[in-house]
Amino acid sequence: MPELIEVEDPEDPRLRDYVRLRDVELRKSLEGGRGLFIAEGEKVIRRAVATGYPVRSVLTTPRWLPGLADVLGGARVYLVSDEVMAGIAGFAVHRGALASMGRVELPTVKALLTAERAGGARDVAEGSGHGAFAGTPRRVLVLEDLVDHGNVGAIFRCAAALGVEAVILSPRCADPLYRRSVKVSMGAVFAVPYARMTNWHAGLDELRELGFRTLALTPDQTATPIDEAVMGPRVALLLGSEGDGLSSRWLREADEAVRIPMSPQAMSLGVDSLNVVAAAAIACHGLMRGAPAGG
Amino acid sequence: MPELIEVEDPEDPRLRDYVRLRDVELRKSLEGGRGLFIAEGEKVIRRAVATGYPVRSVLTTPRWLPGLADVLGGARVYLVSDEVMAGIAGFAVHRGALASMGRVELPTVKALLTAERAGGARDVAEGSGHGAFAGTPRRVLVLEDLVDHGNVGAIFRCAAALGVEAVILSPRCADPLYRRSVKVSMGAVFAVPYARMTNWHAGLDELRELGFRTLALTPDQTATPIDEAVMGPRVALLLGSEGDGLSSRWLREADEAVRIPMSPQAMSLGVDSLNVVAAAAIACHGLMRGAPAGG
Repeated sequence: MPELIEVEDPEDPRLRDYVRLRDVELRKSLEGGRGLFIAEGEKVIRRAVATGYPVRSVLTTPRWLPGLADVLGGARVYLVSDEVMAGIAGFAVHRGALASMGRVELPTVKALLTAERAGGARDVAEGSGHGAFAGTPRRVLVLEDLVDHGNVGAIFRCAAALGVEAVILSPRCADPLYRRSVKVSMGAVFAVPYARMTNWHAGLDELRELGFRTLALTPDQTATPIDEAVMGPRVALLLGSEGDGLSSRWLREADEAVRIPMSPQAMSLGVDSLNVVAAAAIACHGLMRGAPAGG
Repeated sequence: MPELIEVEDPEDPRLRDYVRLRDVELRKSLEGGRGLFIAEGEKVIRRAVATGYPVRSVLTTPRWLPGLADVLGGARVYLVSDEVMAGIAGFAVHRGALASMGRVELPTVKALLTAERAGGARDVAEGSGHGAFAGTPRRVLVLEDLVDHGNVGAIFRCAAALGVEAVILSPRCADPLYRRSVKVSMGAVFAVPYARMTNWHAGLDELRELGFRTLALTPDQTATPIDEAVMGPRVALLLGSEGDGLSSRWLREADEAVRIPMSPQAMSLGVDSLNVVAAAAIACHGLMRGAPAGG
């Protein structure tokens, strides 16, 4: 049974995980340093719990409690009025509940890419009984230094929809568990396993040692069209940051530079690239087309 | 020569086009009703002017004026201090200049889709001397009731990059000239010509009469994979709104329902669709692959 605690004072220190939502900068350090993140709404909270993240506490109103009670275990639930809820969160909360979730330790890149998925904890938690993603990952994305949380979330959604089996983040890439990432991903950040590199310099070497062919996505129209790239059994597609694209180091070290073919007229229209989510979507679609039928 | 007017009082009524930037709701009615839109930054202002939109006035600071002077003709330029600029716009203006632009009358759908493009005013203005998009449009997008201005902008960017020659908006679709649309499109809203349907009910009939095969994009995984769809010489791809997708009427009336193939595992991961920008990107890529080589 959840532990229900009625709170009337929006300044109550027990609500500090939520009150600080208003301060974006503070929020970043909190989410990083203290190891929490915020899940919003029943559906996302359920998925976060199912993925194995522990609930620190929940903030909701009496109206929304019944729909959540079964998933909360013994978590503390702070019950507030609609007015206090809106005041605390600093915005209108349409989804009725916020949960402060504890982070769990991420796997290493090696552990992520050598883990057998079928029958693993995540598959069981997600109710996937038909051996989805049997074997170790064969199609992965590597995100280098993306700064926009919405973009990271949208790319996770593409990954989940289009059969990418794992995501690897560069050391400085934006956080998939930041509130906006979670929201834009529609919960896909809980569906696609991910790891964060600890060493950017040696990052591609490690992928290669693990058997991955690395494809660097670039707007450079002299690169290989992605639908013609050599795929092989294990492919890691590298996506660069919003402004500058991939670093020159990764572009140089990758096994092959690949591009999304643009219209011959695009340059004369003043458009020389796609945004990173559009590029990721087309690239994931291309990876799926090139995926081997068997493990 | 631009007419330079120094303004010190942020409440000066001559600045009202800019002051009201702060009020999103008012802004919507202003942009619709009074027929103006705001272009931000030198590059975007240049492209808007090149496309033929008249400059009502410009708001900038002395530092940014020299880079713009040549493009402004005889427009009124309100020169303010950095402090007044930041105060008026209600946000930090990193790009140094805002222009209040007059709208021009949009073409009808029929005029848009029967216009010969090569050598037209837009091609000349954009400096495209190599007959880009010769003939009438053969690949077009139709956006039904999208509500998010950022999504509309991102889809225009995809269209420009991937060879879509025109965009048609449903009567209720969000405005491509809204500030966020322009920004996210990187100016592509000035590069891809568009029209707005006046009659949603008869919209697809009109496209058909103009020789277009209509393809309705749906997440329904029983539809035809887009790469296998029958394209033909003229194709209009229909994209639905963020929440609900295409209306049942348009889905029913379209010549063929098409889908983006999703991973067999996506449903078990709780992901049953792509966001509309990702879907549009893959679909535009598919249209380009299926485009006929000649006019």
